[in-house]
Amino acid sequence: MLPEVLLVSAPGKVILHGEHAVVHGKVALAVALNLRTFLRLQLHSHGKVNLNLPNIGIRRTWDVTSLQQLDTSFLEQGDVTVPTPEQMEKLKEVAGLTKDCANHELLAVLAFVYLYLSICRKQRTLPSLDITVWSELPAGAGLGSSGAYSVCLAAALLTACGVIANPLKDGEPVSRWTSEDLELINKWAFHGEKVIHGNPSGVDNAVSTWGGALRYQEGRITPLKRPPALKILLTNTKVPRSTKALVSSVRSRLLKFPEIVTPLLASMSAISLECERVLGEMAAAPALEHYLVLEELIDMNQHHLNALGVGHASLDRLCQVTRAHGLHSKLTGGGGGGCGITLLRTDLEQPQVEAAKQALENCGFDCWETSIGALGVSVHSATSLDAPVQQALDSL
Amino acid sequence: MLPEVLLVSAPGKVILHGEHAVVHGKVALAVALNLRTFLRLQLHSHGKVNLNLPNIGIRRTWDVTSLQQLDTSFLEQGDVTVPTPEQMEKLKEVAGLTKDCANHELLAVLAFVYLYLSICRKQRTLPSLDITVWSELPAGAGLGSSGAYSVCLAAALLTACGVIANPLKDGEPVSRWTSEDLELINKWAFHGEKVIHGNPSGVDNAVSTWGGALRYQEGRITPLKRPPALKILLTNTKVPRSTKALVSSVRSRLLKFPEIVTPLLASMSAISLECERVLGEMAAAPALEHYLVLEELIDMNQHHLNALGVGHASLDRLCQVTRAHGLHSKLTGGGGGGCGITLLRTDLEQPQVEAAKQALENCGFDCWETSIGALGVSVHSATSLDAPVQQALDSL
Repeated sequence: MLPEVLLVSAPGKVILHGEHAVVHGKVALAVALNLRTFLRLQLHSHGKVNLNLPNIGIRRTWDVTSLQQLDTSFLEQGDVTVPTPEQMEKLKEVAGLTKDCANHELLAVLAFVYLYLSICRKQRTLPSLDITVWSELPAGAGLGSSGAYSVCLAAALLTACGVIANPLKDGEPVSRWTSEDLELINKWAFHGEKVIHGNPSGVDNAVSTWGGALRYQEGRITPLKRPPALKILLTNTKVPRSTKALVSSVRSRLLKFPEIVTPLLASMSAISLECERVLGEMAAAPALEHYLVLEELIDMNQHHLNALGVGHASLDRLCQVTRAHGLHSKLTGGGGGGCGITLLRTDLEQPQVEAAKQALENCGFDCWETSIGALGVSVHSATSLDAPVQQALDSL
Repeated sequence: MLPEVLLVSAPGKVILHGEHAVVHGKVALAVALNLRTFLRLQLHSHGKVNLNLPNIGIRRTWDVTSLQQLDTSFLEQGDVTVPTPEQMEKLKEVAGLTKDCANHELLAVLAFVYLYLSICRKQRTLPSLDITVWSELPAGAGLGSSGAYSVCLAAALLTACGVIANPLKDGEPVSRWTSEDLELINKWAFHGEKVIHGNPSGVDNAVSTWGGALRYQEGRITPLKRPPALKILLTNTKVPRSTKALVSSVRSRLLKFPEIVTPLLASMSAISLECERVLGEMAAAPALEHYLVLEELIDMNQHHLNALGVGHASLDRLCQVTRAHGLHSKLTGGGGGGCGITLLRTDLEQPQVEAAKQALENCGFDCWETSIGALGVSVHSATSLDAPVQQALDSL
């Protein structure tokens, strides 16, 4: 059998509206970010499983024979939806991990081992394979990099084991799985996310699986019908922040000033809904007026987030710099630094975009010209990937 | 009879919280600003009425004899609460005003003639007098300069005509009228404001009369009990704006995004009420913690006003500059430029205040170190006034 190569990609995510408000039962809109994670899976007969994660400098190898001999029955635990500490400990043992590796590396390897064993254990023999995962997404920036990682792993392993069919037809550059198969990918990716995050919301893997945009409220995830792809600048201020501390500070402010903060959260929720409505209209016939409304919503929400106390001088700077170029920005995610998004209207010329990007980079920020509402998890032909992506994946 | 000299002063006003929201039935807090308008009234027997307004370069003289012969019955029109166009035309005729003088000058003179004739016409003979009114307040900056002007005129004329008693006792530097007399002053000042503004809310003259702070909602004016005086920087960005256009733009935004803007206005109203509550606590025992809460409220409301779309780059600059000095600011009044206030906590050293003031002046702004919650209309002894005020009033 010739080595089969699978090339899979999945998008990151940004919160378009509703960050922080969502913690208090309000509506959030999450959208697929077209900075993608790419996975290359090659089946072999070398009796090894090689995992290569060039972004974090990790290479791991396991013998298929020894993995085959493991008792993996602990992975079947009925209704348990979050891995127990005991399961996590066993997984670490199986993965051959010592405690001295850094936490995020450990968790990326653990999630792989978990998904590999769980998905492939029903095969007669575990597959030998090389897997490389490389991402355009900065890690730990709230852009759903672990969700995209889990989605890529789930899609590739399910396909490699024949649980779902490879939808790519000869001559096609890119293809997507059926809805049913995507449900399965999403389910497994969610399990992978649980290994990494403990108790994730499920939003990141859902956005990365389905692409486009989805509404999230009190645990309910509803994909939007035909959301438009919108060009944006994604800017990372690189100011480190603790989302946990920020969420806690909003809670304190809500307790301190309930009469002030409760209607503010209601206003934020209404921004999410209005944005959802506008995106719906844009699906039919996108017009410049829609972009102008989206800009107003971005401005209002950025002020609201500042009123909640989750702004930061670096984000003020980001907004000010893009404003000077006639563009509108807001923080995305936790705030207090981190990332911001800037909407690029369709009437902008490329030099205007370049000038804004340059101005942001002059502030010391990382800046990507990309889009939101991107395609969800996809399978690619080898020739359809850009050279830098190919190079990164070939680095094994 | 020796010439009697009356020296009167009245404060300006700023909106502490609730600007714009008040237009939509929400609560606003207006506070007396200790930039004052001063009036010097000297009774004579020279048969003249001399009005001197050095701020706007106006001197006017009328013969008491000819004023005495006028038919001023048109000033008594029963329940009419706003001067009719006909009354305004007659007033202009009486005042000897041509249409070629600038509008604000015209209105200041008209208000004087109106108050002089209305208040003094019940005297057997109209009094001969010199009146000089000079203000520390910049005109047309939304700081209630016309309210303070009307209050000074009403207080001085009512006292000079013996309608109310001069409360100043020998040896006292400053004194205030009784509550009953203040009611009368306020009533007449409101009439003066109507001549100047057509249909004023009555807030400016009320704050200028009573001093301190008052709550305003849907036409109801409620003075706060014992509000504390708070030190502030008052900054005039000198960016011209149209309050009318800004009020109209907020209304448009409310109509466009009712679900977003309605709760935002509710949040602003809650800020006013929370501020009122804190000011009440401060009356009993002011503490640094109160100032910290006031700062939080200022920050939140400034973000809310930005979310309403009434901010301006100059006001962002003002907030940013004071923030760099550890101080918190918001726009006051209409926004879109105009004035901002910066709270000065009690723990600040004078050099810190000076540095912030200097930084604001370096932006091209005018900046005053003053206070809010100031004393309402007062009568002063000649020796109690500062030299610059004396000089300004002596310029006749």
